[in-house]
Amino acid sequence: MHLFFTPDISADFYQLSEEESKHCVRVLRLVKSDIVFLIDGKGGLYKTEIIDDHPKRCILKVLEKRSEYGKRPFKLHVAIAPTKNMDRLEWFLEKITEIGVDEITPLICQRSERRELKIDRLQKIIVAAMKQSLKAYQPVLNEPLEFRKLINSASESQKLIAHCLETDRKSLSQEYRRGENVLILIGPEGDFSPEEIEAALKSDFKAVTLGNSRLRTETAGVVACAQLNFMNE
Amino acid sequence: MHLFFTPDISADFYQLSEEESKHCVRVLRLVKSDIVFLIDGKGGLYKTEIIDDHPKRCILKVLEKRSEYGKRPFKLHVAIAPTKNMDRLEWFLEKITEIGVDEITPLICQRSERRELKIDRLQKIIVAAMKQSLKAYQPVLNEPLEFRKLINSASESQKLIAHCLETDRKSLSQEYRRGENVLILIGPEGDFSPEEIEAALKSDFKAVTLGNSRLRTETAGVVACAQLNFMNE
Repeated sequence: MHLFFTPDISADFYQLSEEESKHCVRVLRLVKSDIVFLIDGKGGLYKTEIIDDHPKRCILKVLEKRSEYGKRPFKLHVAIAPTKNMDRLEWFLEKITEIGVDEITPLICQRSERRELKIDRLQKIIVAAMKQSLKAYQPVLNEPLEFRKLINSASESQKLIAHCLETDRKSLSQEYRRGENVLILIGPEGDFSPEEIEAALKSDFKAVTLGNSRLRTETAGVVACAQLNFMNE
Repeated sequence: MHLFFTPDISADFYQLSEEESKHCVRVLRLVKSDIVFLIDGKGGLYKTEIIDDHPKRCILKVLEKRSEYGKRPFKLHVAIAPTKNMDRLEWFLEKITEIGVDEITPLICQRSERRELKIDRLQKIIVAAMKQSLKAYQPVLNEPLEFRKLINSASESQKLIAHCLETDRKSLSQEYRRGENVLILIGPEGDFSPEEIEAALKSDFKAVTLGNSRLRTETAGVVACAQLNFMNE
């Protein structure tokens, strides 16, 4: 199955970009009447046929469109402190895109070791993971945001903070209500500071634990995403 | 917290290897009366004190021992087809060690792209993840095994095969019984062959799905591990 990401598709015909045309015709060696699938990042999955296999201006005709393809029953927003090691953050983005996420916010915390990100590069990783895992919805990747700004602006019906302090925390199965939109905060190496946790609780966040294991930041993010999707199956 | 992996610890005193002594004394700059923790890979967590900070023969005295540290209520055995890309397999091993697993078997399937593994290198990754996530039990990493041999020798009370064919499959929450020892099979890129799936079902394996997302092999392994641990919380 050959899949292209075409967020700008609007009509029943679509011309691939020069780069994608080259990939389609020269690399994949597809020819006229071959079938190609498109995703628009907004839930649309298109089955198309090549009607002109031009190596620079490949033209596709839409045969069939499916809307809300793979739509999930809840909205998942993960706010996570970027890891010092970029590979770990990139791996995290690839994995939660595969598993299923709607919005990601890099969170700048007191103990964050990284505050700058190349959002463009991270977007490419998300799109590659979307294509690989056949996701018609593109997760929104926000610009990095300060912890206080996020907890003050959060609008999800359920707001959770996963931390490791030995305080009163419930598991996701005890705290999260299936089907509800949720924002979960994942802290940096070294965890959130006590002040951050207190501020979140004052802003109606609930403290949760992801289990008894001591998880790396990116692992905690993936486990939270897996558990919340699992609870909504 | 300084942690060393010492599978051979037996008495109340322990001499670190030359390499570990160097790391402890020269790199970490620990000195006499400093506290060091040891894990033995069999559930033992030891709190020890340095009584001789010799850079080549550092001697530790056990102050306190905890047995069955972090013991989980079920045994989890994941048999997974090694990915073509070794980074993905190594990443998988690191993550499931963090999340919690007891036994891992590299599975050689009809469609496996990789049949050879450097087990020693993979063992090092598991030990590093154990230390990072404070796991006192060392997951057992088996030598690669042919699919047919595994399904014929499996002894776990619950045997599951996660595949992507559109056949009758239940979710883990429907199929897995909390608290029971379980073996779950994760296929290669391109999935198990229909013959392999049929053979597994004939050997009393139950077919399961990990959700609606199309997951890479290593992602499926991590998601299965996360879901099964979550169900046993």
